[in-house]
Amino acid sequence: MGEGVNLPPSPIGRGDGGEGFCDSSLLMSLEILKQEAAEKAVEQVQSGMILGLGTGSTTRYATMKIGSLWQSGQLTELIVIPTSEQTAALAREYGLPLGSLNEYPMIDLAIDGADQVDDDLNLVKGLGGALLREKIVEAAARRFVVIVDDSKLVKQLSFVPVEVTQFAWQAHERWLGQLGAKTQLRLKANQPYITDNGNYIIDCTFADGIADLPQWAATLDTHPGIVEHGFFLGMADEVVVASVARGVFTLTKK
Amino acid sequence: MGEGVNLPPSPIGRGDGGEGFCDSSLLMSLEILKQEAAEKAVEQVQSGMILGLGTGSTTRYATMKIGSLWQSGQLTELIVIPTSEQTAALAREYGLPLGSLNEYPMIDLAIDGADQVDDDLNLVKGLGGALLREKIVEAAARRFVVIVDDSKLVKQLSFVPVEVTQFAWQAHERWLGQLGAKTQLRLKANQPYITDNGNYIIDCTFADGIADLPQWAATLDTHPGIVEHGFFLGMADEVVVASVARGVFTLTKK
Repeated sequence: MGEGVNLPPSPIGRGDGGEGFCDSSLLMSLEILKQEAAEKAVEQVQSGMILGLGTGSTTRYATMKIGSLWQSGQLTELIVIPTSEQTAALAREYGLPLGSLNEYPMIDLAIDGADQVDDDLNLVKGLGGALLREKIVEAAARRFVVIVDDSKLVKQLSFVPVEVTQFAWQAHERWLGQLGAKTQLRLKANQPYITDNGNYIIDCTFADGIADLPQWAATLDTHPGIVEHGFFLGMADEVVVASVARGVFTLTKK
Repeated sequence: MGEGVNLPPSPIGRGDGGEGFCDSSLLMSLEILKQEAAEKAVEQVQSGMILGLGTGSTTRYATMKIGSLWQSGQLTELIVIPTSEQTAALAREYGLPLGSLNEYPMIDLAIDGADQVDDDLNLVKGLGGALLREKIVEAAARRFVVIVDDSKLVKQLSFVPVEVTQFAWQAHERWLGQLGAKTQLRLKANQPYITDNGNYIIDCTFADGIADLPQWAATLDTHPGIVEHGFFLGMADEVVVASVARGVFTLTKK
């Protein structure tokens, strides 16, 4: 997820292995905790479910747990709808049956990570580049459970990846700048990063956070050329958090 | 524009050469009137303008008129931003200087056709397949003038082309159907038609027209996987109409 991609420095600095986790034993603890958090989310999986599975280091643990419960026969008749080829490959390793939204338009439970989570369980996603597919899959889910480590918890969301058409992308970037965002076209090996849908991503950061989230999302939704954005507002039902300081705990919708 | 493309039958039947225009002399009259309408729109073009030029049979006349005024020196220092390769090629034939929104983010005047126009100058566009680029260009215009023949004038808009991601397109089609639309994936030579942006188009028709347009547009705007739709609401400043019965006349915003 996102390897070799130039991403905006500020949010990335908050990620796994960031400040406070330099010690290797702490890092190892965090990995174990992330695994525990993933297993806690997987407790909600039942036989017969259509599952949406995202990408990322913590969600990977969830997919592996589901895979081993499938192999041991404790979970049966599952269909997995992956949001990336990477997750599809991992599910295939465990022999999990794959499906698509075209065949299964309604998902029982989606599990995925996030790049930022605020107190109201609003999310930012998209550092991995798959925000559009993730949003399509997760919007089709009856229940959406998010797994993160506590470095992703914030008072106020402060950045958003925005997927735009290649056509007139500089005009889109200028427009985002006029709205108050510090913008940067996402690059990969010094070329524009191209999403699965053939679009570019403009990473937007906000030094003072984003006050009126619904207004921002609506403005992005209606502007032609903005294909999708990484705000996932009101979509998460539960967030399972891995924290070295506090262990594994759960946040639910107020 | 749209040749060889399978389009929904109802709106197409209302187009050029449709009911009431079977007689060849009437057809010829309509062509002359469309040309007159185009020339009337072109009266608003001034030297030094950044122009957005769309595609379609009537807009073609406008581009040709601008081209000849350019060649005769009556219009100078223009920049043309075309919404299609076809329009770019025609502009090039006249030696008109081409630009892009990346270089010129603000357009002085956009001229384009439409597939339906209601009394409030709300438009449906997209039968030609270029709705996304057209909307990007026309949303960036200070003034947007539309040229149509009177078969495009309707009491209520009754269809809309919707550009969707290839990913999960059947789920998108099902969702549109649940909203009350009769849906059809647009085909070309028996394969899904693919837009310039790599997406599919689902043509939606509404037997009883669409009552709450802003609500419909907002619902489409916010649904993940809907890349763009052909409703152009509140965007047109003026519509120049060619009518065999009434000659050339102009509708302006109320």
